Amino acid sequence: MTSLATTDSFVPAADAGDTSSLDIRPVVLTGDRTTGPLHLGHYVGSLRARVELQHRADQFLLLADLQAMTDNAGRHQKVTENVFEVALDYLAAGIDPSLSTLFIQSQVPELAELSLLLMNYVTVSRLERNPTIREEIRQRGFERDIPAGFLAYPVSQAADIAAFRAQLVPVGDDQRPMIEQTNELVQRFNASVDKQVLVSCQALLSRTGRLPGLDGKAKMSKSLGNSLALGATAADIRKAVNRMYTDDKHLRVEDPGQVEGNVVFAFLDAFDPETAQVDELKAHYRRGGLGDSVLKRRLEAILQDTMAPIRQRREALSAERGYLRDVLRAGTLRARERAASTLGDVRRALGLTYFD
Amino acid sequence: MTSLATTDSFVPAADAGDTSSLDIRPVVLTGDRTTGPLHLGHYVGSLRARVELQHRADQFLLLADLQAMTDNAGRHQKVTENVFEVALDYLAAGIDPSLSTLFIQSQVPELAELSLLLMNYVTVSRLERNPTIREEIRQRGFERDIPAGFLAYPVSQAADIAAFRAQLVPVGDDQRPMIEQTNELVQRFNASVDKQVLVSCQALLSRTGRLPGLDGKAKMSKSLGNSLALGATAADIRKAVNRMYTDDKHLRVEDPGQVEGNVVFAFLDAFDPETAQVDELKAHYRRGGLGDSVLKRRLEAILQDTMAPIRQRREALSAERGYLRDVLRAGTLRARERAASTLGDVRRALGLTYFD
Repeated sequence: MTSLATTDSFVPAADAGDTSSLDIRPVVLTGDRTTGPLHLGHYVGSLRARVELQHRADQFLLLADLQAMTDNAGRHQKVTENVFEVALDYLAAGIDPSLSTLFIQSQVPELAELSLLLMNYVTVSRLERNPTIREEIRQRGFERDIPAGFLAYPVSQAADIAAFRAQLVPVGDDQRPMIEQTNELVQRFNASVDKQVLVSCQALLSRTGRLPGLDGKAKMSKSLGNSLALGATAADIRKAVNRMYTDDKHLRVEDPGQVEGNVVFAFLDAFDPETAQVDELKAHYRRGGLGDSVLKRRLEAILQDTMAPIRQRREALSAERGYLRDVLRAGTLRARERAASTLGDVRRALGLTYFD
Repeated sequence: MTSLATTDSFVPAADAGDTSSLDIRPVVLTGDRTTGPLHLGHYVGSLRARVELQHRADQFLLLADLQAMTDNAGRHQKVTENVFEVALDYLAAGIDPSLSTLFIQSQVPELAELSLLLMNYVTVSRLERNPTIREEIRQRGFERDIPAGFLAYPVSQAADIAAFRAQLVPVGDDQRPMIEQTNELVQRFNASVDKQVLVSCQALLSRTGRLPGLDGKAKMSKSLGNSLALGATAADIRKAVNRMYTDDKHLRVEDPGQVEGNVVFAFLDAFDPETAQVDELKAHYRRGGLGDSVLKRRLEAILQDTMAPIRQRREALSAERGYLRDVLRAGTLRARERAASTLGDVRRALGLTYFD
């Protein structure tokens, strides 16, 4: 656990409690809804850290097609088509299938079973109070027309975490209520069967801030049209950097410019390894006399260097559909074994073992 | 279907539409929550008709342990222990495992998967508007603390019905909203995948009224303490008949008595094959001059005759735990095959077939 606590990218949540009892290689569960290919925001916010984490943890990477379905009824094709796209992004970014277990949620039916069982241990009003869900419901404009599956997805997420006995779950700060709810469910279930069947988990908070959208909005998102896909071409990257929001009051080179909210600096913070030079550039920009185009050319060069190998791996892998399928099949098999073992314990604890 | 429509016990709901397209042996799904052994109310309300129906339909009998769990978190032992008790009641009452398929809900994981998928096609507020659920929530005193699994159990029930492509579902009048909700889900799912994957069902309403409790309350229920178990001893039966509510204004034999609300007459209506004699007795009772004890002795004799063979079969079978287990195992296997076939169609329709 010490090695994890000192990683650059992740830090256990402050309220995570005593972590000394954790194994050297803790079980980590993380993943993505498969609603589209991943973009640079995912790379900075989670993917980069997972590439690092896979050497130190027993990492399960969930391609969450079922979770994506909960607010995409009728758009199932988008969800299923992107399963392989997201898997491609994982491998292209450096996820090594011999170190991480990639699997498809819908192909592990044990997760559905556990979800359904856990739904008896949480009330509807508790689900409705979950701040993450409230915000997501607001964003999606569901109002009173919330799909039941969507309201219940935190239970499904808790089942995913619990099924793998995950000890650490990398999350953004806005998702900490999900971890609290998972642990509530785990504790309520254990209390109800009077046995420590499921294990609690800890949030692993990202140290890196969230990458803003190209337009300066707080969040990079494909649906907002302000993202840069991981598989972007050199021309895409150039175009994206050119359209990046900087400081709309910084009209002449000699004017003082603002660093806060400036997307180019946010990207330099995220990607430029020369942090001392970036600090100097920030000071220069604030004083005036530093043009946006100088910064943008510097950033573009860095992004081209960072993204070229990812793009090349992605292109090469996307021709190897058979290999990708084999990776997912093997990972899913391994995931099923784990989940089935936990589900077996859950079933035994509830007495759902009539034929044993 | 004609044969079903003219059965004594069941009649298709008036709004069931054209039934002429149904097969000669339609698929019927029915069953019970496994929260306790069955009583005479179940026998009259459903079990007796199922014994008849099994000759005319492909009948699936669901031991609904998972559904029972939705409002029995922490009382799982009660639920699982009663699976074999209810199965015993079925066989004792005349269910023939070579004609009907008995199976345990929790042992058919395909039902959990389908439940979770269908939850995306119904809103929380639609579930909250279901009149059956509203009444059940009121009865259980849940108020705002409704377990999520309980609110969602109609979806789970719809999944059970849909998984077996059941065409007829025997229900009480108070459960017709469940059938409506099932058909809504089926139609919404089919529309969303643009294919007739799931089939709609029809309510099969019981012609027999509900058997009242021994105390005259509208419903016989173990938890109300006004029931008579199917496996009751001769002494239990005698005691139950003696305590039956008749007419508390009928103090002397010569007084006129009331037939309506009189439990003994309700039982005679349900069990006495000599309906003309029962009509005469009713007239006599209304005029005055007919004592409760005469009626009670008549009823007791009939109940003893009806229940003795059930009790004897139940006793004999309860010593054959291995046989009972074999019956349930074989039925569950058959049920899994059916449910897996439907789930396969659902998965294909949604594109959840990455490894095919």
